[in-house]
Amino acid sequence: MPSSDAPTSNVAIAEDRPWEELLRLAQEGTSVELEDYVSQLSTADQCLALSRLDEAEETQVLEALKAEDAAELISHLPEVEAARMLGLLDTSTAAAIVQEMPSDEQADVLGDLSDAQAEAILDELPREEAAAVRELSSYDDDEAGGMMVREMLRFSDQMSVRDVIQDLSDHGEDYSDFDVRYAYVCDSDDRLVGVLPMQNLLFVKRAERLADLMIVNPISVQAKASLDDLVELFDAHNYLAVPVVDEEGKLQGIVHREAVDYEETRAIESDYLKSQGIVGGEELRTMPLWLRAKRRLSWLSINVFLNIGAAAVIAYFQDTLQAVIALAVFLPIISDMSGCSGNQAVAVSMRELSLGLVRPTEMLRVWWQEVSVGLINGAALGLLVAILAVLFNGNPYLGIVVGIALFTNTIIAVSIGGVVPLLLKRFGFDPAVASGPLLTTVTDMCGFFLVLGLATMMLSKLI
Amino acid sequence: MPSSDAPTSNVAIAEDRPWEELLRLAQEGTSVELEDYVSQLSTADQCLALSRLDEAEETQVLEALKAEDAAELISHLPEVEAARMLGLLDTSTAAAIVQEMPSDEQADVLGDLSDAQAEAILDELPREEAAAVRELSSYDDDEAGGMMVREMLRFSDQMSVRDVIQDLSDHGEDYSDFDVRYAYVCDSDDRLVGVLPMQNLLFVKRAERLADLMIVNPISVQAKASLDDLVELFDAHNYLAVPVVDEEGKLQGIVHREAVDYEETRAIESDYLKSQGIVGGEELRTMPLWLRAKRRLSWLSINVFLNIGAAAVIAYFQDTLQAVIALAVFLPIISDMSGCSGNQAVAVSMRELSLGLVRPTEMLRVWWQEVSVGLINGAALGLLVAILAVLFNGNPYLGIVVGIALFTNTIIAVSIGGVVPLLLKRFGFDPAVASGPLLTTVTDMCGFFLVLGLATMMLSKLI
Repeated sequence: MPSSDAPTSNVAIAEDRPWEELLRLAQEGTSVELEDYVSQLSTADQCLALSRLDEAEETQVLEALKAEDAAELISHLPEVEAARMLGLLDTSTAAAIVQEMPSDEQADVLGDLSDAQAEAILDELPREEAAAVRELSSYDDDEAGGMMVREMLRFSDQMSVRDVIQDLSDHGEDYSDFDVRYAYVCDSDDRLVGVLPMQNLLFVKRAERLADLMIVNPISVQAKASLDDLVELFDAHNYLAVPVVDEEGKLQGIVHREAVDYEETRAIESDYLKSQGIVGGEELRTMPLWLRAKRRLSWLSINVFLNIGAAAVIAYFQDTLQAVIALAVFLPIISDMSGCSGNQAVAVSMRELSLGLVRPTEMLRVWWQEVSVGLINGAALGLLVAILAVLFNGNPYLGIVVGIALFTNTIIAVSIGGVVPLLLKRFGFDPAVASGPLLTTVTDMCGFFLVLGLATMMLSKLI
Repeated sequence: MPSSDAPTSNVAIAEDRPWEELLRLAQEGTSVELEDYVSQLSTADQCLALSRLDEAEETQVLEALKAEDAAELISHLPEVEAARMLGLLDTSTAAAIVQEMPSDEQADVLGDLSDAQAEAILDELPREEAAAVRELSSYDDDEAGGMMVREMLRFSDQMSVRDVIQDLSDHGEDYSDFDVRYAYVCDSDDRLVGVLPMQNLLFVKRAERLADLMIVNPISVQAKASLDDLVELFDAHNYLAVPVVDEEGKLQGIVHREAVDYEETRAIESDYLKSQGIVGGEELRTMPLWLRAKRRLSWLSINVFLNIGAAAVIAYFQDTLQAVIALAVFLPIISDMSGCSGNQAVAVSMRELSLGLVRPTEMLRVWWQEVSVGLINGAALGLLVAILAVLFNGNPYLGIVVGIALFTNTIIAVSIGGVVPLLLKRFGFDPAVASGPLLTTVTDMCGFFLVLGLATMMLSKLI
């Protein structure tokens, strides 16, 4: 580990409004002063400061930094922001920065640019690097190919320990960011044939060949391996990285455990956003207003039409409602409480699916476990609401109607909430997006139908 | 990396019902056969299989495995499950298994047992190990002390390279799971004085002292460092681990990057559960029914009382509602749509808070950015709903009432949704738990008030 990063220059630290200091140094200070200031900010404040500048100012800051420092800075930003800012720069500046980024980040950020912008930058990269990036970009973010990096120790099986030590000595600088716990050993056709724990080099004679020291038949994955496969692999083994090979067994790159952790976290964060109705991808408030409004509205308009179903039930029973207006007071309570119960069931199903504690085919089992809870909680809530109704209105039949309706609708809600995520997953849909609205619509319709239907049946007792 | 883990024994793999095969082998097979079967299951299936057994059967399986294999198996389970199963075993079996676990897991799992059970197990551990575990247990899961492990390479600054190589050679087995990229160098008082990148040992003479080779003044953290501090540190530096020292600078352990990633993911998953009303901790459907029902019900009952507020608004305007019963059809649409808009704003605020792109004090800024979106989407939705009302009922004044109400309530909802998470965080509350219900209650009340209040004002035009 390098010694502490505390700056030695005397830059005034504008704690409150770091974006002002950032801009001032970009315009008036040297690139060293600017980099010193940036590196003493927390990464969160680096992102915050950049996000408060307008496009011209962001460009000034990125141009004022050395390419490697600019690459470091934008690597902390959310991907869409990093790509947007690169797109503001002229092609050679952008290319210089991209060249300083690790290979998986290069692919990610170029993938977020328009094809024209990405091509322009790739044209300015060294041919071999551009070809490598193009290849990495062909993979999705949640495949091994999209997570792998090419920065690894790679040696030939014919090399001796002395050769390896010489190589490390010659290329120490280049390797300074690599994970050097293992080296990957290939044959003359670049096929991965073994893995070498580097610490073993301390114990052996320098004339030994790697072919005799390495661990043969190492575990590897194909570039198309999914995030789930990789999570499973890193769960089962203590590895810090796993090599990626093509169909011929040639070594293409390595996937670090931390890259898999990162993608897993991103998937969870994305599920949360989708379950709350942010379905068009990341929304940051610095994005253009029309984009934010448009994306949110596309979700909201779908919901309006789902809501019409529940409203239609009320329209159908208008006369009953008009005759027993007290029912209108309890309709929102019943729909809201059923929604809450259902959401709890959805959350537990999502959690158990992610932990692998339930399979998407086990719907009957889940349904039974949810109904059990629904019976208990439905009875408790139904009783509570029945008592409230009688206190409000005096008529015990009102209590019976709303109580039975909430009891029944709770059971319906937890049944749907528990089962729908499994159903969606079973048929290849995204449970995070659709579970919420489906649940709410159906439980509202059922809830209103139960209350107003029962009330219609018992109308004479209620008026 | 060791060669592939594929089993060599011919165990029949019961794909469909792995818990049956697991039990059969525990009762009839050898511990080697059982371990072979377990290790060829995915970790998800290991958890699933165990969770489908009853308590007596779980005990049989854990007792049939060798202690280190049992430790490996339960390390894949959610913490509460691992602790529960350990609690079922007799103390010496449990202690043997605990001894095989890495130090941070030991602390975690004992922390989830009752004090009596934990003490009984600790008494059976070697004194030094028990003392270490007690110390680790004194920290919260989301502090450096709760995430650190003691398994690291630790050498004296007076040692030579030759001494180190000898030590690695003697203790190779023990160190097989350690992160050996760095060794931590301490003085005679156990104070951390330097860090040594192990690869450097390849290039130097064996007589050199560590004191001359190490990097001095390494970055370290105190045991009380928070998860946020650690996330920031690993964001800013490429380290795979960071040492933990006490107030005197003595080395206590190291925190791995992956431990921090893990806690970060756990925090996000926990936020998701809490935002959906699972607030009493992890819920797994294998937990006792009364526990699941009770925890969910505690949340639901609070919500009933929040709902009473909105219901009271309707009760207050009963007469208007009875006179213009068509309003009842639109009340749920308006409350639901406002809730959706508000939830979108909450999600974006939670996301921006976690990325550090907004500070909890910047409520005015967030409010303005949300109101901008609210004006656009509120106008669009209000218009849509007004058209639906006129199509339904014919009376344009109904359209005006519901349209204005939804327009206004959308703006209210996004304002509250955007600001409440910042407000809660600013004052030390958990935004994940409270944002949802607060939002729903207030927007329901406002929504009903707007519709019914406007309708009352324009009653003559609506009847």
